[in-house]
Amino acid sequence: MRSGWSELAVDLDRASVVPIYRQIYERLREQILAGALPEGTRLPPERTLADRTSVNRSTVVHAYRELAADGLIEQRVGSGSRVAALAGGRPDRAAAVPWWVTLPPWRVGAFPAVLGELAASEHETIGFVQGVPPEDPSPLAALSRSFARAGGDVNFVLTYGDSEGYAPLREQIAARMRARGCGVDARDVLMLTGSTQGITLVAQSLAEPGDEIVVEAPTYPGALQIFQIAGLRAIPVPVDEEGMRVDHVEAIMRTRRPRFVYTMPALQNPTGVTMSAERRDRLVTLARRHGVPLVEDDPYGELAAPAADPLLARDADSVIYLSSFSKTIAPSLRLGWLVAPRTIYDRLLLRKQSIDMASSMYIQAGVADFLRSAYDAHLLALREELAARRSLAHAAIAKHWPASMRVLAGGDGYYLWATSPRELRARALLANAERRGVSFLFGEAFFAQSGGDHNFRLALTPVARAAIEDGIRRIGEAAR
Amino acid sequence: MRSGWSELAVDLDRASVVPIYRQIYERLREQILAGALPEGTRLPPERTLADRTSVNRSTVVHAYRELAADGLIEQRVGSGSRVAALAGGRPDRAAAVPWWVTLPPWRVGAFPAVLGELAASEHETIGFVQGVPPEDPSPLAALSRSFARAGGDVNFVLTYGDSEGYAPLREQIAARMRARGCGVDARDVLMLTGSTQGITLVAQSLAEPGDEIVVEAPTYPGALQIFQIAGLRAIPVPVDEEGMRVDHVEAIMRTRRPRFVYTMPALQNPTGVTMSAERRDRLVTLARRHGVPLVEDDPYGELAAPAADPLLARDADSVIYLSSFSKTIAPSLRLGWLVAPRTIYDRLLLRKQSIDMASSMYIQAGVADFLRSAYDAHLLALREELAARRSLAHAAIAKHWPASMRVLAGGDGYYLWATSPRELRARALLANAERRGVSFLFGEAFFAQSGGDHNFRLALTPVARAAIEDGIRRIGEAAR
Repeated sequence: MRSGWSELAVDLDRASVVPIYRQIYERLREQILAGALPEGTRLPPERTLADRTSVNRSTVVHAYRELAADGLIEQRVGSGSRVAALAGGRPDRAAAVPWWVTLPPWRVGAFPAVLGELAASEHETIGFVQGVPPEDPSPLAALSRSFARAGGDVNFVLTYGDSEGYAPLREQIAARMRARGCGVDARDVLMLTGSTQGITLVAQSLAEPGDEIVVEAPTYPGALQIFQIAGLRAIPVPVDEEGMRVDHVEAIMRTRRPRFVYTMPALQNPTGVTMSAERRDRLVTLARRHGVPLVEDDPYGELAAPAADPLLARDADSVIYLSSFSKTIAPSLRLGWLVAPRTIYDRLLLRKQSIDMASSMYIQAGVADFLRSAYDAHLLALREELAARRSLAHAAIAKHWPASMRVLAGGDGYYLWATSPRELRARALLANAERRGVSFLFGEAFFAQSGGDHNFRLALTPVARAAIEDGIRRIGEAAR
Repeated sequence: MRSGWSELAVDLDRASVVPIYRQIYERLREQILAGALPEGTRLPPERTLADRTSVNRSTVVHAYRELAADGLIEQRVGSGSRVAALAGGRPDRAAAVPWWVTLPPWRVGAFPAVLGELAASEHETIGFVQGVPPEDPSPLAALSRSFARAGGDVNFVLTYGDSEGYAPLREQIAARMRARGCGVDARDVLMLTGSTQGITLVAQSLAEPGDEIVVEAPTYPGALQIFQIAGLRAIPVPVDEEGMRVDHVEAIMRTRRPRFVYTMPALQNPTGVTMSAERRDRLVTLARRHGVPLVEDDPYGELAAPAADPLLARDADSVIYLSSFSKTIAPSLRLGWLVAPRTIYDRLLLRKQSIDMASSMYIQAGVADFLRSAYDAHLLALREELAARRSLAHAAIAKHWPASMRVLAGGDGYYLWATSPRELRARALLANAERRGVSFLFGEAFFAQSGGDHNFRLALTPVARAAIEDGIRRIGEAAR
């Protein structure tokens, strides 16, 4: 009988959202399946392992119970826990081991399930959390009419439609993009089930696990989650009042060859910053010179006043452009699009087919109708609403926040990016604020590596306009 | 100056849907980037390469032109084509090489873009091609009312909703599945943007590129496309009148450890066969004994009369269950669901988030309303319509087809699986039929490896009921 646990290694990542008991389970499982802990090995008593790893005993009890449930260890009163006999030996022949025990490794490791949080519904009194459109101006009445028109037509409801998207809608989108200076034809447009889908298509089609990419810091956490699941290594580049620090990108390109640069040049999430024209020029030049494509994520571009000209307008060969109707009409449409050079279009299309065949024809036909009948007026009203909310927020901040708490100057987008006082981490501020019935997202989620512990994002759109000042006042109280 | 082309290898796959010119381009590109054809190497004259590979000269001209456009070769009048100087040398430092030239390898090789074909609209007079619901009984009026109710609520339209899905809809689905004998709780249900999405989630979460899986032969071509993109190796198992040959699965399990078994046990696409109870029992026992999960794809299960009890009802731990409203209500809903054990649910959920955050709340709320108000009556009418169409088809076949052309006996699903006469391949039959204004899908697309050259699938739903006999008669003529 062996007693190999004295050198047992159980590394835990306390910053991870993977529960600690699960991490212990995973580490032990790996060692059992790899043969490092052979049959009969005694595991340390729960109390011992708990002390050694500085966790509660109940956490270790939980982990051991799961291992026992999966047949990996045996627990007997009085004699503790031992590694069980795996029928047939190691996993490749281990017939009795349940299948979920031998799943391929999961790349998401210390991985914040941010997309789920961003999507989930809220319960706070004043939740500055989700990037959803304001309730007013409401697109609902016009949208209902558009859907009523589409919903009576079998060709929209009882078909899958083309994987590329509904042709008249692709035409409309191409025309709108031409009006923004981009040389786009309908055949260059691929409709997406939300622009998130486009980020996944790009991550899986342009790169392989282990490849490097360049991202902004801070950036959209959903994109970071996707890149992490795809196994990509994100090199962060800081963002300032003029957008991404393109000089940093240049330095990276000198020594590395990232698969692409992911950037949100208009009303960036979370900073609200729009990239300066000079930096746009320089970034596109860099991309062309070094043969590295730019992935331009532009869900807010049509909300900038004046409208920002996309990177795509500067170089159609180097840019894969993504956008969405989630921020300009409604998230529940789950409708976005991409524009890609012919060199990559088919690859993205085939992968899109494998994800959901085609985006909903019914939704596409409804949106095509809405674009013809109501979109421009709605955009105008939405821009005004966003500007009004931002003014309200800035006035409230000036009035209610301590001078040590600042927000980054940006455009009229959905978000404010704030810095907490030096002595107060954003997580601690959030805890205080939640006790006062206000919530927001703390900064770490927006960074691929370290950073953001003194930052937080306020989404100004999901709350009632009248509640903005009160919410900001309470955050000011929470900071004192 | 070198002239290395005498041993130049350009293997072409003439069965592939990748155009031949593109295959030539890819093969040459690979060799140039790998250094096998160094700078200055003369490529064979277009005529020479065309003769050697038995293609048209214009095909080679096209391939060379693309290589030149990407800066990989230089073409000069009089001196032919030579490999260009790559600035910086090999691709890792090749700054001047456009980015799309050095993309990661594309796994889809000789790959039928079947999902696109299945989704695309048709132009034939009588197209027995797509698996879309019949126009009658129409769900449109009731669906429009359901969507009108959902479309007025900001909580359905202006939010993303939970990634797991709309809670009341998950409850309804769980209750329906319990009525079919499955021990399903709402928390076990994950809403999908069509069940295709579920196949991708499973392929990416349960297996890694290079892993083996087991599929039916024939099977749903969209699933084969997804497995191919995911780099999985599909081991085919034949299907007969009682469904998948489970004895073959057993033989495979003895020597190999596939990551999962993909099966459609009810009204299988394309055969229409429903797996016998005895085989279901045996398959579930096998899965448990060998620790290999079953992926049960069940879009037609609710259309079987009497309703088929899912594999899931036999063993909730070994089965990942997928289904969809595309065949029972409308494909444009792009709404499906999966039921998975807790051991894998979170992994699937995180990946689903990265694909599209959440499925449309608006669609989910509308479908929840439809399920309460109209679904059961619609299902009943749909089952009757399918049975009526099938009777019509069988009668027409008996009357108009030569005795050498048969269809497999199956249930009242969407499809008939037919065998062409020995002297006539299905592709040739299709060419004849198309000249008579009728189309269908030929069999090869339904097989992971070889097979199907004398098979074809008739979808009975996309045509007018009155056109079924005429269409079948014309196929009979085409066979003579």
